Amino acid sequence: MKFFKVKTVEETFTLIEEMIPGIREMETRPLEDALHCILAEPVVAHENVPAFDRSTVDGYAVYAKDTYGSTESMPGFLTAAGEVNMGEEASRAVARGEAIYVPTGGMLPPGSDSVLMIEHCEEIGGLLNTYKQIAPGENVIRAGEDIRAGELLLEAGIRLRPQELGALAALGITHVRVYREIVAAYLSTGDEIVPYETERLEAGQVRDINYLTVSGLAQEWGIKVIYGGITADDYEGFSSRARELFEQSDLLILSGGSSVGAKDYTTEVIQSLGDPGVFVHGISIKPGKPTILAVAGGKPVIGLPGHPASAMIIFRLFGERVARKLKGEILKSKPERIYARMAKNIASAPGRADYIRVSLSEKGGEWWADPIIGKSGLITTLVKSDGIVEILSEKEGVLQGDYVPVILSK
Amino acid sequence: MKFFKVKTVEETFTLIEEMIPGIREMETRPLEDALHCILAEPVVAHENVPAFDRSTVDGYAVYAKDTYGSTESMPGFLTAAGEVNMGEEASRAVARGEAIYVPTGGMLPPGSDSVLMIEHCEEIGGLLNTYKQIAPGENVIRAGEDIRAGELLLEAGIRLRPQELGALAALGITHVRVYREIVAAYLSTGDEIVPYETERLEAGQVRDINYLTVSGLAQEWGIKVIYGGITADDYEGFSSRARELFEQSDLLILSGGSSVGAKDYTTEVIQSLGDPGVFVHGISIKPGKPTILAVAGGKPVIGLPGHPASAMIIFRLFGERVARKLKGEILKSKPERIYARMAKNIASAPGRADYIRVSLSEKGGEWWADPIIGKSGLITTLVKSDGIVEILSEKEGVLQGDYVPVILSK
Repeated sequence: MKFFKVKTVEETFTLIEEMIPGIREMETRPLEDALHCILAEPVVAHENVPAFDRSTVDGYAVYAKDTYGSTESMPGFLTAAGEVNMGEEASRAVARGEAIYVPTGGMLPPGSDSVLMIEHCEEIGGLLNTYKQIAPGENVIRAGEDIRAGELLLEAGIRLRPQELGALAALGITHVRVYREIVAAYLSTGDEIVPYETERLEAGQVRDINYLTVSGLAQEWGIKVIYGGITADDYEGFSSRARELFEQSDLLILSGGSSVGAKDYTTEVIQSLGDPGVFVHGISIKPGKPTILAVAGGKPVIGLPGHPASAMIIFRLFGERVARKLKGEILKSKPERIYARMAKNIASAPGRADYIRVSLSEKGGEWWADPIIGKSGLITTLVKSDGIVEILSEKEGVLQGDYVPVILSK
Repeated sequence: MKFFKVKTVEETFTLIEEMIPGIREMETRPLEDALHCILAEPVVAHENVPAFDRSTVDGYAVYAKDTYGSTESMPGFLTAAGEVNMGEEASRAVARGEAIYVPTGGMLPPGSDSVLMIEHCEEIGGLLNTYKQIAPGENVIRAGEDIRAGELLLEAGIRLRPQELGALAALGITHVRVYREIVAAYLSTGDEIVPYETERLEAGQVRDINYLTVSGLAQEWGIKVIYGGITADDYEGFSSRARELFEQSDLLILSGGSSVGAKDYTTEVIQSLGDPGVFVHGISIKPGKPTILAVAGGKPVIGLPGHPASAMIIFRLFGERVARKLKGEILKSKPERIYARMAKNIASAPGRADYIRVSLSEKGGEWWADPIIGKSGLITTLVKSDGIVEILSEKEGVLQGDYVPVILSK
């Protein structure tokens, strides 16, 4: 077997970016069912938004020059020449010296180039007194000012947030091409592990809680997880079950069994699934050192440490990157991490990245991160935490008051 | 009609906290289907987690005192007395002067109080050379150290994150009592509004894009939205459609029609739905001043401004609070807002809260917020943004480099 050198967190991120393929199969979805899907094809606008010049205020559509010189004490005078109804075409043009009433959002009549707010004029018997001069374009959104016909509205690879759905709807687009949904499969290993539904534990047994934390996180990323059960620690059984699940899914997640123990078949099983195989075997990180990342025949495989807290932190940290890359998302610089100030001094071994569970509180317009006390294997330390502080390997720890990046719980 | 004084953002938050009731109907859900549901009843642990003393390392279970004085140069000697298999009961006790091998996660044999890591000892023909002294409890998680039988594990009103599901699974809990799902209904008003599916717009018409942004946000908060269509601006039609949707849902969302115009029946319609009625009518905020919040017969009603960008910002800001309160969630101090540094000077009218769309970028271990250029009515300004900077009313603006709170897009 290949010899694997433990990777740093940064090296692991780079390798994920290089090694994990994005799926290419697309599907068409109605807009209402496309939230957080990844756009598979760019969207070019086929029309202007808005489709016509619109007023942004209640007021009078005018030719701006006709208001020049108007002040409170020296008003100008225009002829009030009717009004535009909401949702209707402005049929009559504004001639020089005229003004036509337009409500907020209404269509500007031809001939006008701006709207004088009702607060700045007064209609008296067919005559409009203007108390303010305005500039061309004032209080108007021009046709195409929001979206211009022909422009690239959305690139392929972006995640559709509510605002992207809104922008698509503005163009009357009802369906989008997105990458299809991802299905992951989860398989647990370990002679001590029993299904979490087990009512009474025998001595020495523990429940398989990683399935709940892993599938919960995956669900937050829009990924469905098939529960593959628990395999015993024998190579044949483990290997055939893993292959079965691997073939049913886009991403195989193995929990436990990745520590270097006598009964550790995980690496062997993963290597048997296809090439190129394992590309990360061990990360200089605490918790979660015995982590495995692989690609076999174009599908990612993640080997998580068995400790519940480690498994969850590792999956949050690396699993999310793997998942987003696999889903076809173009990863942009976005605040996955926020900054907070550390409430206590924290020591850290140089050459190793430490992930410290913290609770957050707001003080003086800043977030402060307070480390959670308790052994790192305890799931309740995660229950008590709002996020995880990242202390990267070049640091020997952080001092009270230092700014630190925090990965938030959703 | 009552006279309404425009509220500040802070007053609005306080009023939401006071006025919005939480639903009380509960349902039982399997753990796998309970992510982000709100726990309706507290969970008290009925057993210890772990159920037995566990080793956190591969090593030998010993009585700590038997290792005292052991060093690399002056090793101690113990009798190697067998091993504990994973997932099995440690049947044989450790007597004084003995050591029993235990794998990571294995059960400690009676009589032992600590585990000496394999790195710190060596077994040679039934004899264990110990090279290090350890303290009682070292490398052991005690029974009940993660969760203690009888302790309050989770309070009612918390949102179930993956880690809470994990902690419940650790106890073998398979179903939880949560508050039932919330259904909202959305109704659009305005003579110019047409369904977003409309292929060709007539002059003066615009598509109803607020439905997509509002239902997208609601979906992010776990709320389903019924589309109620578009009502014309006549009181009878609007009122009867609003009542119909109000009766079908837990939360009524009205879009548009809340500006003070000739055809504005929104307030009247909301007041007709029940008591106590409108409690916020206008907020000193930009964008989104003409916002209405009401409670009628125990159900919240939100009147959003018609401008797409305003509607989305207002719904993100106040709708989320209303939704979370309604869902029965106990709102804790959590980073809904992160802090970033402003990349440019921004003026702001005192007495008004300003919400500035920004893109974020990371520089020198900090997030910097760069304002998006464009009129506030444009939906594309939200498409280009990563979040919204909050400048509260007491400020007259912020200077370049100032720390500002940012509400992130999901």
